[in-house]
Amino acid sequence: MSGTLRLLPLGGLGEIGKNMTVVEYDGRIVVVDTGLRFPAPDQLGIDLVLPDFTYLRERAADIEAIVLTHGHEDHVGALPFVLRQLDRAPPIYGGPLTVAMVRSKLDEHKLKDVRLQDVRPGDEIKAGPFSVEPVKLAHSIPDMFAYALTCELGTTLVTGDYKFDQTPVDGIPADIARLAELGRDGVLLLCGDSTNADRAGWSLSESLVGPQLEDAFSRCDGRIIVTSFASNIHRVQQVVDAASSLGRKVALVGRSMRKNVNIGRELGHIDVPQGILVEPKQIEDFPDEKLVVISTGSQGEPLSALRRMAAGDHRQVHLRRGDTVIFSATPIPGNERAVNETVDRIYHLGADVITTKDAPIHASGHGYAEEIKLMLNLVDPRYVMPVHGDHKRIRLHAELAEAVGVGPKDIFKAENGLPLEITESGARFGGPEQAGMIFVDGVDVGDIEDVALRDRRMLSADGIFIVVATVSEQDGRSVADPEIIFRGVPFIDDDAELVSALRDAVTDSLARSAADGINEISLLQTHLHDDLAEFVYRRMKRRPLVLPVVVEV
Amino acid sequence: MSGTLRLLPLGGLGEIGKNMTVVEYDGRIVVVDTGLRFPAPDQLGIDLVLPDFTYLRERAADIEAIVLTHGHEDHVGALPFVLRQLDRAPPIYGGPLTVAMVRSKLDEHKLKDVRLQDVRPGDEIKAGPFSVEPVKLAHSIPDMFAYALTCELGTTLVTGDYKFDQTPVDGIPADIARLAELGRDGVLLLCGDSTNADRAGWSLSESLVGPQLEDAFSRCDGRIIVTSFASNIHRVQQVVDAASSLGRKVALVGRSMRKNVNIGRELGHIDVPQGILVEPKQIEDFPDEKLVVISTGSQGEPLSALRRMAAGDHRQVHLRRGDTVIFSATPIPGNERAVNETVDRIYHLGADVITTKDAPIHASGHGYAEEIKLMLNLVDPRYVMPVHGDHKRIRLHAELAEAVGVGPKDIFKAENGLPLEITESGARFGGPEQAGMIFVDGVDVGDIEDVALRDRRMLSADGIFIVVATVSEQDGRSVADPEIIFRGVPFIDDDAELVSALRDAVTDSLARSAADGINEISLLQTHLHDDLAEFVYRRMKRRPLVLPVVVEV
Repeated sequence: MSGTLRLLPLGGLGEIGKNMTVVEYDGRIVVVDTGLRFPAPDQLGIDLVLPDFTYLRERAADIEAIVLTHGHEDHVGALPFVLRQLDRAPPIYGGPLTVAMVRSKLDEHKLKDVRLQDVRPGDEIKAGPFSVEPVKLAHSIPDMFAYALTCELGTTLVTGDYKFDQTPVDGIPADIARLAELGRDGVLLLCGDSTNADRAGWSLSESLVGPQLEDAFSRCDGRIIVTSFASNIHRVQQVVDAASSLGRKVALVGRSMRKNVNIGRELGHIDVPQGILVEPKQIEDFPDEKLVVISTGSQGEPLSALRRMAAGDHRQVHLRRGDTVIFSATPIPGNERAVNETVDRIYHLGADVITTKDAPIHASGHGYAEEIKLMLNLVDPRYVMPVHGDHKRIRLHAELAEAVGVGPKDIFKAENGLPLEITESGARFGGPEQAGMIFVDGVDVGDIEDVALRDRRMLSADGIFIVVATVSEQDGRSVADPEIIFRGVPFIDDDAELVSALRDAVTDSLARSAADGINEISLLQTHLHDDLAEFVYRRMKRRPLVLPVVVEV
Repeated sequence: MSGTLRLLPLGGLGEIGKNMTVVEYDGRIVVVDTGLRFPAPDQLGIDLVLPDFTYLRERAADIEAIVLTHGHEDHVGALPFVLRQLDRAPPIYGGPLTVAMVRSKLDEHKLKDVRLQDVRPGDEIKAGPFSVEPVKLAHSIPDMFAYALTCELGTTLVTGDYKFDQTPVDGIPADIARLAELGRDGVLLLCGDSTNADRAGWSLSESLVGPQLEDAFSRCDGRIIVTSFASNIHRVQQVVDAASSLGRKVALVGRSMRKNVNIGRELGHIDVPQGILVEPKQIEDFPDEKLVVISTGSQGEPLSALRRMAAGDHRQVHLRRGDTVIFSATPIPGNERAVNETVDRIYHLGADVITTKDAPIHASGHGYAEEIKLMLNLVDPRYVMPVHGDHKRIRLHAELAEAVGVGPKDIFKAENGLPLEITESGARFGGPEQAGMIFVDGVDVGDIEDVALRDRRMLSADGIFIVVATVSEQDGRSVADPEIIFRGVPFIDDDAELVSALRDAVTDSLARSAADGINEISLLQTHLHDDLAEFVYRRMKRRPLVLPVVVEV
């Protein structure tokens, strides 16, 4: 009983996304989730953002298992990248849908021979010093599990994303009884979802969305296009049910929508009545009032089916007056602009739009403040570490914990890389471990140098000037007219005077250097850079990247 | 009475921002507003977006007057750029505050000798065939006027931005009586604000914000930092009043906040009690509970005072535990991410944040649906052209007009550049005029070539590869090792194998061209570009801008 339990968040703290938590006892590790996030607008050209998992790479030999709470990208998306960098792949566990979605993802990455195993609530996963138990909770995707990780020091509950939905679409509510049992037996540490800590009250039950959708459908005379998250299989179920009860056929549009519905059907999570599905290419064969299209693109994603419909270049669906597009989702923070643009283009095409501002046609998958308090009361933990949230939500979750009676000293507001260390005598933060973000850019993964992003920012803001000067090897004198090339710099082509003045500035700079007896290339280039940058700023009030190239002949 | 009245919107239709409307009769023009908008994230490196005002430049001789509804950037911001390009500057009219703000702006642009004249409600502006009358309305800035432009064919009312605030802070509500008189006498055309056509009911009165602010203040023990729009002088008044009644001093932080309060005080729009103002550098001299700071930055603008406080690098205000930052503003669509980031950094510093989600501490300056209907009923126009709105809001405004009994054929959903032509026998759209956007980029203004923006997008996404090859003038053979330079391309520096393979690819390409007898530079460059681009894509799955430079010696 003298060991130290270490809880090390590698992602998801002080941010929304890339959730990853390392649970460690006696030097042996279980990783809960391996998520990613999508890049911010100033992370130019970056495809994906992953947690810095140097710690896992260095401790690969000590990882007993990776357990996955559910199949969303912010909880499983980094897995292929993590696995590729571990010398030794540990077994991976998750619910049946989670495993099916992850397997499909690993196949795309050509990762075979991964020990991927589905588990069910109540199963026991043996992982070194830990006994790990999945506990059923509800979320906006089926097969969402919290994990109770028990070692000799006590039990840690990592909740994943959850809500206490009393009428979930699959009829299996969160296992409150088991949470209460765990609480009664004593939980050492609760790591709970903070996503909706800023919303008062209770979240809407998923099954209340269905009647609202049917109600909205019943007022539409023409075609209906519903967009939602492709992984929200219970939402898709409710759209199918509403369509069915109104005698409409259903077409699925968008690659991930078709894929997830297929996986969901195979696993019995969605029940599609015989004969209701039609192929996208048949859409124009059915009368408008007999059709519902379910589409990806609820976040205004650039290449999504709905975005292409809005731009008028989707192959199968040409939006027009009489159509109604229903957004059964809210914009994830940061996507508001893309969603608004999509909505406005749809209006421009003459179709109508219904969003969650018009009717309660979406339910969040994350519990609100009262649900977070219920979790705290059920589990009655010794220590609390709020996870999955930016600084605001972590703070608000901590305040909720205080409100239900957890002592302020037993609540730990962590940061990525800051391990909470618990022994028999107490809990405190240990020294920080390496954490942060790494980028996926094309096929490369790594700690992108700041300089590359800084260059991209300069390039995107003001373009680039390249000067090629050909000078004599002997004395550094210019032996040919300098060549000036620019990209991303507007208004220059038409301005012969400016181009000629630029060329003069280069020639002058070279002449000055030659007069000063400078013929070392790097020095020539530095002078050329400084002179040209100053000239450009004076004339154009812009700071493009200036790149001098001196060729010696 | 045989003339044609033309209403030509040059901005503000199918978008939010850069409002500009041309009203024309008998070939003579009055321009209502000359606004700008701020660039979208994909308009890389652009500073400002202006309406394409080619039409005004070509018709400069025919412009009788420019009338300005109020001093917001989306209504006056393009004025310096327009004036600089007109051969002949027309007289410009606006309310006293509008004129003072515009004068300060023109001074910054070193535009002197502009005929800028302040007018008051009920004044008559003679402008060629038009008699133009300012009508007092309420908005989130003082001195907001609609304009009634009367020619022999009838009266056009251009509303500007308005709400029917029954208890405005200055005690002078919208002049409903005058609007009703105009309606009784007959209004031919109403061009009305559509901004809040999607919000049901009535907007909140500005003067109800004050007590809410005071209520929030009274619950704060430490320093209070309030952020709002600097031009919302009545809001600043209410913050000052709340501070005063609770015995707190007030410091103004941020250049535009100080400037606007000064102008507002000179014109009597704001009444600051003696001795309440303290200088920003004195902030630390006062006890926390005796201070309110009013700051710019409510939209998370990168260089604003509040954003710098949140980043921990504001000179006078160092946010800390105990401080409360109050956002007395909502994010303008598109700014949500910047605002959320700012809020979260403030939480990270330990301070508290109150936003409009927590208390009704902001009121919109634009009337909601019922107010738009009231305007329609008061003015009772023959024709309606909704303005100031994206496609969605234009459509919703049109539906409101139908709801109060305007015939669908008398409602014109216009677009930028599409003129509405009205004669005695009816109204219809005429042929389109040049319209769109032009960009301000550094000191240049113009129709930025798509190619420059496309290049900036490529540069920002994947960086640039430059290859400098030195070849013999005789036979095109490479005479020196090719030089390869890259910017904004990560991961390469460490990859000696890749760099060497790149160089080989260049050498191979040149050798192939030489073997094929190709020695024309442009052709050499084309081959080099294609070969290298393909190589880079195959190896790195990226499409940087590839720029070959061939130097002949």
